[in-house]
Amino acid sequence: MDFPLVNGNSSDVSIEEDSAAIVKNDSHHSSLVNGHRNGSPDSFNDIQGRLAMPLFGMDIGGTLTKLVYFEPANFDEFDFAERETLKTIHKYLIGNTAYGKTGIRDVHLELGNQTICGRTGKIHFIRFPTAQMSAFIELAKLKNFSGLASGICATGGGAYMFEEVFAKEVLLQLHKYDELDCLLKGIHHIDRHNPCECYYFSNPRDTECCDKLPFNFHNPYPYLVVNIGSGVSILSVRSKTDYNRVSGTSLGGGTFLGLCCLLTGCETFEEAIGLASQGDSRNIDKLVKDIYGGDYGKFGLKGDTVACSFGQMISQEKRDAARKEDLARATLVTLTNNIGSIARMCAKTEKIERVVFVGNFLRVNEISMKLLSYAMDYWSDGSLKALFLQHEGYFGAMGCLLEYLQLNS
Amino acid sequence: MDFPLVNGNSSDVSIEEDSAAIVKNDSHHSSLVNGHRNGSPDSFNDIQGRLAMPLFGMDIGGTLTKLVYFEPANFDEFDFAERETLKTIHKYLIGNTAYGKTGIRDVHLELGNQTICGRTGKIHFIRFPTAQMSAFIELAKLKNFSGLASGICATGGGAYMFEEVFAKEVLLQLHKYDELDCLLKGIHHIDRHNPCECYYFSNPRDTECCDKLPFNFHNPYPYLVVNIGSGVSILSVRSKTDYNRVSGTSLGGGTFLGLCCLLTGCETFEEAIGLASQGDSRNIDKLVKDIYGGDYGKFGLKGDTVACSFGQMISQEKRDAARKEDLARATLVTLTNNIGSIARMCAKTEKIERVVFVGNFLRVNEISMKLLSYAMDYWSDGSLKALFLQHEGYFGAMGCLLEYLQLNS
Repeated sequence: MDFPLVNGNSSDVSIEEDSAAIVKNDSHHSSLVNGHRNGSPDSFNDIQGRLAMPLFGMDIGGTLTKLVYFEPANFDEFDFAERETLKTIHKYLIGNTAYGKTGIRDVHLELGNQTICGRTGKIHFIRFPTAQMSAFIELAKLKNFSGLASGICATGGGAYMFEEVFAKEVLLQLHKYDELDCLLKGIHHIDRHNPCECYYFSNPRDTECCDKLPFNFHNPYPYLVVNIGSGVSILSVRSKTDYNRVSGTSLGGGTFLGLCCLLTGCETFEEAIGLASQGDSRNIDKLVKDIYGGDYGKFGLKGDTVACSFGQMISQEKRDAARKEDLARATLVTLTNNIGSIARMCAKTEKIERVVFVGNFLRVNEISMKLLSYAMDYWSDGSLKALFLQHEGYFGAMGCLLEYLQLNS
Repeated sequence: MDFPLVNGNSSDVSIEEDSAAIVKNDSHHSSLVNGHRNGSPDSFNDIQGRLAMPLFGMDIGGTLTKLVYFEPANFDEFDFAERETLKTIHKYLIGNTAYGKTGIRDVHLELGNQTICGRTGKIHFIRFPTAQMSAFIELAKLKNFSGLASGICATGGGAYMFEEVFAKEVLLQLHKYDELDCLLKGIHHIDRHNPCECYYFSNPRDTECCDKLPFNFHNPYPYLVVNIGSGVSILSVRSKTDYNRVSGTSLGGGTFLGLCCLLTGCETFEEAIGLASQGDSRNIDKLVKDIYGGDYGKFGLKGDTVACSFGQMISQEKRDAARKEDLARATLVTLTNNIGSIARMCAKTEKIERVVFVGNFLRVNEISMKLLSYAMDYWSDGSLKALFLQHEGYFGAMGCLLEYLQLNS
């Protein structure tokens, strides 16, 4: 219950230099005449046919809510009332990089000089736990979000779950979009507009000499998307518009964190990853060599392949000796390998070689990315390639904003 | 460290009536002349070309060792020295249904009137934790197993792992066979010789009206075998001899037990299943409706589908409220659904409709069998059928015995 400074006021906010400059830049005339909009309350078009900004795309997931905020280069295109609201929101968002104890702006992901539907500006990326939604709603009331056009574009399960609360509490309509449509739209957009978005790990079989290198994803089709949020969805994408959800698993990022909290007493994803980075899963799992004494040659299973995740933990003695770091590492390795294995089966069935892993499970989680890179390469004899995207978990929120803008432009 | 009565002696043993009769039946002459065997020590053929019995097939798995014991209808075919050893072993095995605290004879699985390679007798099924192997080895020394032919047929990883120890400590050679070859041989044999071996659950979508019914498996090909031991192997079987391992996962029965021990403090599989049967996984997992507020219609995900296993456990409050029964149930459901999902993908890729689940994970575990039956049926729109076999985890040990006998007959 500690999200965005619900009692915060502008005096708490120190505005960053370049965004302050933007806020002060009011030399242009507003393109809205007398503050009136044409069309229904559901339309964001102003009377000159240009879009009034919804500004936000929101992806309300099972664990995290992701917010994409488009900061227009020029606030003066808006009518006075709207401009004041925008500035209040802007000052709060851009004046902080953390909101309360759990809301975070990922400054390193910020995208400048973006043009979307005729407007230029910057894109900011913010996240907070969905469990803090009530605090976010309080903030939205406090900052008068209802003064903003007619609503916010939202995707993810929470767009449905919280629709009524938003309408009632904040007088704000959630314009709902399908999360997988949004995900793909977001991926395609960001990849086109951020030259270093896509990367892979070279030498995936050697974790020591395994470098992060850019990958040219400009001719991407067909590819598989493995979206690892709380759970996992796997999509086969054959063109910009032709895709289907081919599989999924409920063993995802939320499973990792839930189990880690139970097993180690940690409380956050960062803590869980921190513990895992110090641990050794071989103290927890049973490897092929723990059962065979070596390789299981007939089926190509090397001695250090995991034969049974958490298999050592059936022994009281081994449980007593298990360190929480080892438990966290085993949890991470177990979940990651399972996802990798399911992804590989899908790639085989779909006859697709490029597998793009996204979702917030991969945030600050190079262990999993390297494991996935290894697994894709090793078990496919080099024919599959694991790819990653810098904006990990934000594609749904980004796509959601675009979906609305493009639909109405 | 409590397996088979390592200090036990025959006075502890109460012999069951009909097996005592067999032990006492010594009116026939031995078919071995002067106790000599022809051929190498590796041959079980006696000088009349009949098999001297190896009697045992052993499957030394990552968690459990499974022992199949063939009780000949007539001990008098053996030479005197061998007969004495056989009787000692026999008295011990058949005189007990439990050995130490953890060795168990599954009396309900016993198969009478069996003829294998010209000999008739009964087949007994015994299991003990592989962690108790040192106690088993002590027993083998005490009961003079080395007096038996030249060895024991063994499969599973432990056949390799413990080969040297057996040779050195018990002067007993382990004749090693591949575990998956043995598994299939065992399945085909037992299914042919036990009319009610194969069964399924009718009305799999309704757990209340879901009955266990016999399934005619006499024309089985092609079928998929999902062997759930410590880990999981999935085989595609097209004929008696044509099969391949198409997939597997390290998240198996050992993972369930390992995690359950960690999460609930239980110590045995039976305890873990007992807890799970009293629990509700919905207090631990996040369902689609916990995220969406209802169904996720576009992709056919019903509200009560698990979206994120252990997803509620990221909340301290929910962790504090979690009962160990609920944790055990969630662990069981998570592992079972994951296995079901991987099996389903394999069935689709292999274009196979019958999926036979075996392995000791299914022992006393109707929850998982019903879940698998439901999952196969529901997610395939009724085209896949989950099948089960009464002798769950014993096919490897059975096949191992047969493998040797048939090879040498």
